[in-house]
Amino acid sequence: MARVTPRVLKGFRDYLPDVMSRRERMLQAVAEVFEGFGYAPLSTPALEYSEILLGKYGTEGDKLLYRFEDNGGRDISLRYDLTVPLARVIGQHRDLAQPFRRYQIAPVWRAEKPGRGRFREFLQCDVDIVGSRSLLADFECMQVGANVLKALGVEHFELRVNDRRILDGLMARLGIEGAALRMDALRSVDKLPKIGWEAMTRELSTKLSLDTSALDALHTFLHGTLQDVDGTVVDLSIAQPGIDALTQLFAWGDELGLSEHLKIDLSIARGLDYYTSTIYETFLTNLPGFGSVMSGGRYDGLLEMFSGRETPAVGISLGVDRLLAGLSELGLGSAPPAADVFVTIYDEESAAYAQTVAAALRSGGLRAQLHLKPAQNMGKQFKAARKSGVAWVAVCGPDEMSGGQVTLKHMASGTQETVAVAEAAPRIVEVNAKGL
Amino acid sequence: MARVTPRVLKGFRDYLPDVMSRRERMLQAVAEVFEGFGYAPLSTPALEYSEILLGKYGTEGDKLLYRFEDNGGRDISLRYDLTVPLARVIGQHRDLAQPFRRYQIAPVWRAEKPGRGRFREFLQCDVDIVGSRSLLADFECMQVGANVLKALGVEHFELRVNDRRILDGLMARLGIEGAALRMDALRSVDKLPKIGWEAMTRELSTKLSLDTSALDALHTFLHGTLQDVDGTVVDLSIAQPGIDALTQLFAWGDELGLSEHLKIDLSIARGLDYYTSTIYETFLTNLPGFGSVMSGGRYDGLLEMFSGRETPAVGISLGVDRLLAGLSELGLGSAPPAADVFVTIYDEESAAYAQTVAAALRSGGLRAQLHLKPAQNMGKQFKAARKSGVAWVAVCGPDEMSGGQVTLKHMASGTQETVAVAEAAPRIVEVNAKGL
Repeated sequence: MARVTPRVLKGFRDYLPDVMSRRERMLQAVAEVFEGFGYAPLSTPALEYSEILLGKYGTEGDKLLYRFEDNGGRDISLRYDLTVPLARVIGQHRDLAQPFRRYQIAPVWRAEKPGRGRFREFLQCDVDIVGSRSLLADFECMQVGANVLKALGVEHFELRVNDRRILDGLMARLGIEGAALRMDALRSVDKLPKIGWEAMTRELSTKLSLDTSALDALHTFLHGTLQDVDGTVVDLSIAQPGIDALTQLFAWGDELGLSEHLKIDLSIARGLDYYTSTIYETFLTNLPGFGSVMSGGRYDGLLEMFSGRETPAVGISLGVDRLLAGLSELGLGSAPPAADVFVTIYDEESAAYAQTVAAALRSGGLRAQLHLKPAQNMGKQFKAARKSGVAWVAVCGPDEMSGGQVTLKHMASGTQETVAVAEAAPRIVEVNAKGL
Repeated sequence: MARVTPRVLKGFRDYLPDVMSRRERMLQAVAEVFEGFGYAPLSTPALEYSEILLGKYGTEGDKLLYRFEDNGGRDISLRYDLTVPLARVIGQHRDLAQPFRRYQIAPVWRAEKPGRGRFREFLQCDVDIVGSRSLLADFECMQVGANVLKALGVEHFELRVNDRRILDGLMARLGIEGAALRMDALRSVDKLPKIGWEAMTRELSTKLSLDTSALDALHTFLHGTLQDVDGTVVDLSIAQPGIDALTQLFAWGDELGLSEHLKIDLSIARGLDYYTSTIYETFLTNLPGFGSVMSGGRYDGLLEMFSGRETPAVGISLGVDRLLAGLSELGLGSAPPAADVFVTIYDEESAAYAQTVAAALRSGGLRAQLHLKPAQNMGKQFKAARKSGVAWVAVCGPDEMSGGQVTLKHMASGTQETVAVAEAAPRIVEVNAKGL
C-alpha cells in the first residue's frame, strides 16, 4: 500500500486522550443532571434527507450544509443541529408520550469558514421539553442549565433572560414592521454587548429611521430594568405576556434559591428567528467577554412543520467546547491520568503474577495499567509511570511474588510499603482519601 | 414553510429513549471496564480525506464508502471503521507515548444493502493497544473483552481464539500459495460454522485442488485440538510461533481464572486480511447461532502505512447493537424508567412548592420528574406516572405544603405515607434498598 500523508480535514480535529478525558468527564456530569430531571437520551442519524433540513436555518444556513447525493441518488445532508432532527422525530414517531423530555449529545456539521475556536464538526448538547406550553417547562430548562454549571463546580455565572414578546413590543413601539425587518433589527440589538451603543445605533440607522423619541425608548429598554418597561417604551398589548412571564420566572427563581444566578437582560435577543417567548444566554461571571456557554428558549412554532399540529417546545443547549475551554480557564475539570496505579512486570515468569495483582486492584475499584514489557531493571518502568502522571506504582518483583505481596510506591511522596495483594486496593483507596 | 414528510433515510434509524437508555447504560459499563485497564478515550472526525480510507477495506469496502466532494472541492468520505482513523492519528500525532491504549465509541457509515439487523450507520466500540509486540497486550485485550461481558451480567460466554500463523502453516501444508488465494481460502474456512463441512469443502474445491491427504489434514485441523496440530497437519516452521502464543495465552487464562471462558478454535479465521497473529471471536453460549458479539486480534502491519515505521497493534471490537440485542434476549440490561419519582403539582400557587420538593429529591440523589400541568384532580397525574413506569409519586397538595411535607406513594404496593420534605429522599432510597 502506498504511503499516505496522515492529515485531518481543514476545520476538523482529533480529540486526543487528555482533552477527550476532560470532555467525557464533563459530559457524564452533564448527563447526570439531565437524567436527574427525568430527561431520556435520544439518538438520530447523522444523515438526513436534505429536504428535512433545507429552509430551517435560513439561506445562509442552507449553504453550510454538507449536502451530497448517495449511491442510490438520494439528496442527503449531514445534520446541522439537533433541533430539526428532534422536530422530525416528533413528527414521525407520533406515539411518543408528551411532554417529551429528551437530551441528545452528538456532533453536527457546518461547512463554515474555520476560525479560532470555530470548527466544521462540533458537539451539540441539547435538552428539550416537547408538548408543554407551561412556563414551568421554561423554568425547568433554566434550572437544568444552572444545575449543570453547579455540578461542574462553577460558582459564579448568570443566566440572562428575556422574552421575545417584550422585544416585539419594543419593535412595535419603534414602528418596525414585518418579520424580516424585525429580525434584522433584533440581530443588531443582539450585538450591543460586543459593539456598544454607538455602533449599534449606527447599524440600526442604516436599516431604519429612528427618531429621538424612539432612540430614547430603545435606550431605556436596553439599559433599564423590567420596572422601566412601560407603555412609553413598548407596546404593552404585545409585551405584557412577556413581562408577566419574566415576573413569574423570577419569583420561582427566588423560591428555588437561584436568584443570584438569574438576571433579566432586555438586550438578549438571540440570532435565530424561531424563538417565540422566553430566551436566555448564560455567562461565566469570572470570565468577562468569554461569551455565552449555554443558551435556549421557547420555540412554539418550529415543530409544527413536521408534526402538522401545534407542538410547543422549549429547550437549552450547551456549547460543549466553549464550556470546556471556560472550565479550563477557571481551573476546573482537569484531565485525570489514564490510570490510578501502574503495575510493573519483573520478568516473563512473574508476568502472570503481575496480571493477578492488576486484576485484584481493578476488583478493588481502581484503574490499573499493566506495563507490557518485563524488565528486572525498574528504572524504565518507573520513568513510564512518571510520564503518565499516575499516582501509584505497584511493584511485583520475585520477593513480592514469593510472599503473595506487592510493594506500593506513592509517587508524590516517594514512600513505599509492602502489603498482601488483597490489602493493596483498600490501602491505596485509604491513602487517596485521607493522605499518608 | 411547506410541510415535509418526516422520514428517516433507508438503512438508518432513530434510537428512541427506551433503547437508547439501555444502550447508554451498557456503554457506560463498558467504558468503565476500558478505563479500569488504563485505556483513554479518543475521538476522531466523522469525515476524512478519501485517500486516507481508500484501499484499506478491499475493493468491496471502497464501494461502500459515503464519498463525496465538499464545497471546497475536497474528495472526502465518512469513516468506515475506527481502525484506519486510529492508524491516521498514530501517524499524525507522533508524540503520543507508546504503548498507546485508547478506546473509541463512535458511529461509522457503510452504504451496504440494508437488511435484518444491518444498518448503514452503526456504532463501533473499539479498544486497541498500539506500540507493543508483547503477548501480554494480546492477553489484555482478551481480558478486557471477558471483563466487559462479566460487567454486563453475562455469565456464559466463550472467547474463541486462534492464531493466523497456525492458519498460514495449514495453508502452506495444503499447498495454497499467494496472499490473495490464502485470504480467499480463509474466507471459506471462516464460513464453516455457518455452512458446514460439506459445503465448505465444496466451496474450497472450486478455488483449489485438494487431495485426500490435504482434506484429512484440514479436517483434523478444524475439528481437533491444539495437541493434534503437528507436522502432518501444518508446516511447523510457520505455525510454531502461533502454537507457542496460544499455549502461553491459555496458561495465563488458567492463572487469571478465565479458563472457562477461553477456548482454542482453529476454525476461527476472521474475514479481514490485516491480522497477523492472534485472532478471536466471542460467543454467548446460551444463544447458539447468535453470532460473534466481540472480535479482534493483532495487526502488526496496518499502522505502518501512515506512520512509515513498524507499529505493532492489537485490539478488540464490540458489536454494540448485536450485544445489546443479545443482552435483551438473555433478559439482561432492561431500560430503566426515565425517573425515580414523579412530582405532582396541585395548582399554580403551590407550583413553587412542588419544584422545591423536586429539587430536594434530586439533592438526595434521585431522578425527579415534575408534572408540568397543575391539576387539583390527581387522576391525570397518576395516570401519566403509571404510564411512564415510575416507581414513586410525590404528592404536593395544599395540606402537604402547609406542613412542609410530601406524601410518597409507592406505586407497586399502593401504600403511601406523608413525611417531611427533607425525609422524602432518604425514605425512598431506604425502601428501594430494603423494601417496605
